[in-house]
Amino acid sequence: MQQISVTALNTEYKAAIQNKIDQKTKPVGSLGQLEDLANQLALIQSQQQGYLVEKIIITKPTVVVFAGDHGISEQGISIAPSAVTRQMVLNFLAGGAAINCLCRSNNIEFTVVDAGIIEAIDQTISELHHNFIQQRLGTGTSNFAEQAAMSDSQVEQGLIYGKQAIAPLLKKGCNVLILGEMGIGNTSSAAAILAAITAEPVEHCVGIGTGINPEQLILKKQLITQALNRFNSSDPKVILREVGGFEITQMTGAIIAAAQAGICILIDGFIVSVAALVAVKIAPNVRDYLIFSHQSEESGHQLLLKTLTAKPLLNLGLRLGEGTGAALALPLLHAAAHFYNDMASFESAAVTV
Amino acid sequence: MQQISVTALNTEYKAAIQNKIDQKTKPVGSLGQLEDLANQLALIQSQQQGYLVEKIIITKPTVVVFAGDHGISEQGISIAPSAVTRQMVLNFLAGGAAINCLCRSNNIEFTVVDAGIIEAIDQTISELHHNFIQQRLGTGTSNFAEQAAMSDSQVEQGLIYGKQAIAPLLKKGCNVLILGEMGIGNTSSAAAILAAITAEPVEHCVGIGTGINPEQLILKKQLITQALNRFNSSDPKVILREVGGFEITQMTGAIIAAAQAGICILIDGFIVSVAALVAVKIAPNVRDYLIFSHQSEESGHQLLLKTLTAKPLLNLGLRLGEGTGAALALPLLHAAAHFYNDMASFESAAVTV
Repeated sequence: MQQISVTALNTEYKAAIQNKIDQKTKPVGSLGQLEDLANQLALIQSQQQGYLVEKIIITKPTVVVFAGDHGISEQGISIAPSAVTRQMVLNFLAGGAAINCLCRSNNIEFTVVDAGIIEAIDQTISELHHNFIQQRLGTGTSNFAEQAAMSDSQVEQGLIYGKQAIAPLLKKGCNVLILGEMGIGNTSSAAAILAAITAEPVEHCVGIGTGINPEQLILKKQLITQALNRFNSSDPKVILREVGGFEITQMTGAIIAAAQAGICILIDGFIVSVAALVAVKIAPNVRDYLIFSHQSEESGHQLLLKTLTAKPLLNLGLRLGEGTGAALALPLLHAAAHFYNDMASFESAAVTV
Repeated sequence: MQQISVTALNTEYKAAIQNKIDQKTKPVGSLGQLEDLANQLALIQSQQQGYLVEKIIITKPTVVVFAGDHGISEQGISIAPSAVTRQMVLNFLAGGAAINCLCRSNNIEFTVVDAGIIEAIDQTISELHHNFIQQRLGTGTSNFAEQAAMSDSQVEQGLIYGKQAIAPLLKKGCNVLILGEMGIGNTSSAAAILAAITAEPVEHCVGIGTGINPEQLILKKQLITQALNRFNSSDPKVILREVGGFEITQMTGAIIAAAQAGICILIDGFIVSVAALVAVKIAPNVRDYLIFSHQSEESGHQLLLKTLTAKPLLNLGLRLGEGTGAALALPLLHAAAHFYNDMASFESAAVTV
């Protein structure tokens, strides 16, 4: 990957944006997080345009779900076998998964990426779907409890693939990238990455995923601890190599590329947040472009959000992934844009301050 | 008002609805509160249709903002003078308020009711707006610190007016009623009602509203305590008479009427929740039809939600009223309907359970 540079947001617009918000016909601050959201969106779009934008314009918001399999799932620490990853990719393509329904409900475009599931989708099926991208890094990662999950070159290729996946969306004018993931075993990978990056105890980073039992949880912690004892590095690419996932690596590349393009990225729950954390470690200014959508039920997410000083928009008790939390949050971005763009000021409405 | 009867939901459908949700291609329960929401919506619509509905259909969701003035605001315990209530009604009619923007963002129809603001809107203006209803109970309530806020007949008339306000919406096919309010001083009235109904200490029920200072907060508590010492009754209509508001009384009537019509009611923050509490006290089965949208910043709301065993969908730090929290929550109802209606089952998608 070339030299990575992401432009920090130009905060010189921040005060002017806040002043515009404070002149709206409402008590100062009374729209709560919606005001922070409007401020961030206006700042990102002003940065991209090079001047203070009058209106926040949201165009072609798109969910991209990255799917990958995990060698660690051989160890029986998930509620479902790896075969379910591929079955769910087919379900995504058929339009029957939760994320499909939420995309239809909220007018969101949808793309699926095979980042390296065990068994590739048949060509006859994949050819039917223009919104399916195959950029496989392998047939699932290696079992990271025993060896590195992938090679250095797979990490580099994964970051490039992530960037490539979103290039056509950027070209079509997408300015809100919404990320989701599917991969049996990927909460284990995400927890291991989080522990390695933050140097927090494994037990603070590991949770029950989509619902494993107490014995599985103990084993999950043991295997992650075993993996972390194998290496000692805070280099995010080394961490991806050792305990990462193909979908997490590609999402990291996609997040960096979206921030480089100056668009906002709507982050889903635990797994996508971990990819965002890795992206911020690689290029700290990425943080300015991130919007956190949903407080996951997964232990470790709170810790991660604290590390990135983030307060998600929603807390609905979701524990599904696929980008469902992020898709549900999109209407709040539209709402922030509407009030920022169209709400009357005290002066224009003749309301007593 | 005639005999009030609201039909309790027929819970015989509940298990069948949950079973349908549990067959969707996702771990059981992994859509969190969205599943509870889908269950409640399907149950309400099944009750109304008389059979187990296959699909949740949302039609003509409408925000109705009830506005009224409060004699208590003479005491200087609000951040703004009573004149602002009328100014904001004009702002609503002009389409410039926060709630107008959120209605446009989320495709919600919008109606304003003058339930008794101090100075009526000029006829020349009101005639221009088909979505404006004048059903004034007076020129603001009396100062409840000194005397009853209104008469028994105003309470009865207010409940009838509330019902009348939503009758045309029901006729047009609205099946999600979204309530909002505007009235300088109405957090004082709401807090007094809450304290009277729950018999909780006044300090647990009173908060800073849209942002009063500590001295105002002390005075607010004193005046509410003074009012509550004047009477001793748990009769919800007596409580409305003594410390209620015209907009709160009419919202109570609207909530009861909507529940009688078998449609769901999306409840905004603190003030609307208090109207809902009064409605539940008058007709307990109303509770089945209520969806709580937003956790208010106002002290007392948590207490109220506990009383009604409710967990709101959003917590965005809003403290504006107008129905803004409820309008923001509507996309979650659409999302619940979409996943309930269209998501594949394990069987249909050939996903391993």
